[in-house]
Amino acid sequence: MGKFKRNQRIGGLMKVLSDNPNKIFTYNYFCNRFKAAKSTISEDIVIAKELTNELELGYIETIAGYSGGVKFIPTLSKEYIKEFLYELCIKLSSEDRIIPGGFVYMTDILYSPSIAKNIGKIFSGCFKEYDIDYVITVETKGIPIALMTAHMLNCPLVIIRRNTKVTEGSTVNINYVSGSTRQIQTMSLSRRSIKEKSKVLIIDDFMKAGGTAKGMKDMMKEFKAEVVGIGVLISTKNPQDKLVNNYISLLTLDEVVEKENKIIIYPSEGL
Amino acid sequence: MGKFKRNQRIGGLMKVLSDNPNKIFTYNYFCNRFKAAKSTISEDIVIAKELTNELELGYIETIAGYSGGVKFIPTLSKEYIKEFLYELCIKLSSEDRIIPGGFVYMTDILYSPSIAKNIGKIFSGCFKEYDIDYVITVETKGIPIALMTAHMLNCPLVIIRRNTKVTEGSTVNINYVSGSTRQIQTMSLSRRSIKEKSKVLIIDDFMKAGGTAKGMKDMMKEFKAEVVGIGVLISTKNPQDKLVNNYISLLTLDEVVEKENKIIIYPSEGL
Repeated sequence: MGKFKRNQRIGGLMKVLSDNPNKIFTYNYFCNRFKAAKSTISEDIVIAKELTNELELGYIETIAGYSGGVKFIPTLSKEYIKEFLYELCIKLSSEDRIIPGGFVYMTDILYSPSIAKNIGKIFSGCFKEYDIDYVITVETKGIPIALMTAHMLNCPLVIIRRNTKVTEGSTVNINYVSGSTRQIQTMSLSRRSIKEKSKVLIIDDFMKAGGTAKGMKDMMKEFKAEVVGIGVLISTKNPQDKLVNNYISLLTLDEVVEKENKIIIYPSEGL
Repeated sequence: MGKFKRNQRIGGLMKVLSDNPNKIFTYNYFCNRFKAAKSTISEDIVIAKELTNELELGYIETIAGYSGGVKFIPTLSKEYIKEFLYELCIKLSSEDRIIPGGFVYMTDILYSPSIAKNIGKIFSGCFKEYDIDYVITVETKGIPIALMTAHMLNCPLVIIRRNTKVTEGSTVNINYVSGSTRQIQTMSLSRRSIKEKSKVLIIDDFMKAGGTAKGMKDMMKEFKAEVVGIGVLISTKNPQDKLVNNYISLLTLDEVVEKENKIIIYPSEGL
């Protein structure tokens, strides 16, 4: 294998960087991979930076110093996010999604890899300044969006279980009261899943009264972890007073009018 | 915004393609995005094809005809897969992973986005000829690897639940016998989650006797779906005779010797 041309190196560089969001690569890594001098790679990176900016494909950050290098931060443009959330609302408000009891069928959307990936990019953008150690969710429906958020932030995902499992070793279990149904529920998390004094981001698919999010916050106290943010895909308009504050919700579910087959959902304000 | 140079177009092309594995993009899409003529984009794609081959970054396929275009198929080299699985075994056989009862703690590995992504690439490579409509898993621990496999194959993920949920509408429920514990368990899946006559790929994290995989196969019969493959990350050496045939397992768990603090696990033969 000979040397590579500039356009080949830039193509390879973009592939490697966008495959590994928020991961730092040293210049040496690319020098070895593309058999090129450091000055050449530097020039390549300048070009790659320009193209990601101009094409709104995210941005490339250079980190100076000994452990320095370059990393790719995936972002979506404001217009793209607006359009994406608007289209999601159109899909979600389709009348055949109404389930008896006033529920909305949404697992096909929550489990779509490409939709989950976009949501992960949006959340990672919202919380990118926080130096997050773990993304936390509780099984099951929020797992895909939480995994993609963790992927974009380049950090591990932690999944809280509803029951104690033998394969988790010693666990911390807490009881919490569901904010909307007032039922007592359980959460269980392996002792070894989170290091003490970590910074965590809570991600979930749905928030009504906020009881589950509150439960996760309480669970994090047991691990002496700091909750730096909460992101949910959908929150309900009512109750307006949730059990947690300072959460980011991408969509607001206003009302499900079963009798009229109508689902009223829209992108949340201030996004 | 002016026209783009060749190296910018190739960088952008690689970014878009590798972000969307197995998704077909028309030449026109790139003509519009990069403000270039079709002949120019054709040349760009030839260069991108060469570079992905030479750098072993996957490969780019051109689809002829009216609905034609270009798509990126993520692959990992045989050497890379070998090394990745070998390293996974080293991590998994660390003695502090042994949990009383002879279990192995592995959720940190199963939930790591970058590990899950690599496993998804490996499985998508194993099953890429099958024109898969859905990737199926059962909650919870297999979800991250199943989601990444679905992402790489550009198809939806379907998650079978352990209990019926009100948010799923009418469901199909089956009982099955766990192959190893002989306990009766339940699986539940929304009626509307899979179209009839689909081709599905089953992905799970762990297989002992194969009872769960057999349960998923039985569930698929209820949906008149064809199971074209089963992929598990880890299967146990014993029992050798599983309840399902024709599965691909990446790693073999030979033995957990609790008394000696030893976990014996290795890449499966024939990979």
